[in-house]
Amino acid sequence: MAPASADPAADPVAVTSDKISDKAPRTERGRKTRQKLLDAAASEFGERGFHEASITSITQRAGTALGSFYTYFDSKDEIYRALVDHLSSRVREAARESRRSDLEALEAERVALTNFLNFAGTHKEIYRIIDECEFVDPATFRTHYESTAQRIFERLGEGARKGEVRADIEEAHAWAIMGMNVFLGLRYAVWSQERDPAEVAEIANSILRGGLLPRP
Amino acid sequence: MAPASADPAADPVAVTSDKISDKAPRTERGRKTRQKLLDAAASEFGERGFHEASITSITQRAGTALGSFYTYFDSKDEIYRALVDHLSSRVREAARESRRSDLEALEAERVALTNFLNFAGTHKEIYRIIDECEFVDPATFRTHYESTAQRIFERLGEGARKGEVRADIEEAHAWAIMGMNVFLGLRYAVWSQERDPAEVAEIANSILRGGLLPRP
Repeated sequence: MAPASADPAADPVAVTSDKISDKAPRTERGRKTRQKLLDAAASEFGERGFHEASITSITQRAGTALGSFYTYFDSKDEIYRALVDHLSSRVREAARESRRSDLEALEAERVALTNFLNFAGTHKEIYRIIDECEFVDPATFRTHYESTAQRIFERLGEGARKGEVRADIEEAHAWAIMGMNVFLGLRYAVWSQERDPAEVAEIANSILRGGLLPRP
Repeated sequence: MAPASADPAADPVAVTSDKISDKAPRTERGRKTRQKLLDAAASEFGERGFHEASITSITQRAGTALGSFYTYFDSKDEIYRALVDHLSSRVREAARESRRSDLEALEAERVALTNFLNFAGTHKEIYRIIDECEFVDPATFRTHYESTAQRIFERLGEGARKGEVRADIEEAHAWAIMGMNVFLGLRYAVWSQERDPAEVAEIANSILRGGLLPRP
């Protein structure tokens, strides 16, 4: 496995699954087949875990021939890595709306968390797949969290320059926010959906706005 | 596997590993041997993961005979579960100092996080072992985080009654704090130790005290 620094996924801007494989589809139909295989892989890895998952079962779920699998992927490892990249980029897309220039910095964090909770609630397998990555492919696991924290840090840094958040913002603040978001997602999007995502995001956001001390 | 509600680990006060097994040691020497096996299991599961780990290798690391293993544990599954309980109770002990009655609520959270970061820095295998539990024994994984969040929620609730934190404290605030703590530990205790645990805990604590808005 390539070290994180040599991994294309280390650059969150450069990553698209297509660039990782030299088996990138060239037609719209090919793109659709590849996407069907990725969706089937998400169900298969999410339900059965990496070790129990099989290529045959992925193609059955996707309703494609076994040959189609090998047109786009070399192995179970390769589709797993492509899937983690794909899910990582879906998380990134969910946060993208928060980069709208009219949003104040902490309002952007609220939008990013609300979108993430909505995404995790409809893609519950994402936790299991990304968590298992710690064991199947540790460098990709680390890259996923490092680049997510980096994006939060960049948003906060922009906010600090505009005077919308504290000037002493540093990387650790971004890791703290990411941790809040990941565990709120586990509890309120994956394990149960008893709370509205917007309400949960507001609770996290109120900590970021004013902390937990009694209101004056 | 028992559902979380029927699991002794669901009651954080009642859990000791000894109560889970009917093979509890009766002598001081027995307790030491059992502890040696648990320490060896922590290294074995931490380095090799659950599936690759073997009972023989655990007894070799512990310097005990294979028969001693079966005096205290029935299987690899059983020592793994006992180890997660043991690590869970070590995390709980690390937080215990924070229940000193002379500490204000948010100061108690700072102490709890500092102690957790110190513990994680010297027991880096804890992340891998507890994270793998999501796949090996999902109910125990869930219980670990639910009871950890419950303890934080109880501490915050006490603080709210004393007027030391906001009166509208709820469970989601505890999950937010736990998430911050877990990810700060992963980044600054396990992956690198470039920052002093007290400094990292102060960054998290400053969010809890006043959020991220510019200081007036």
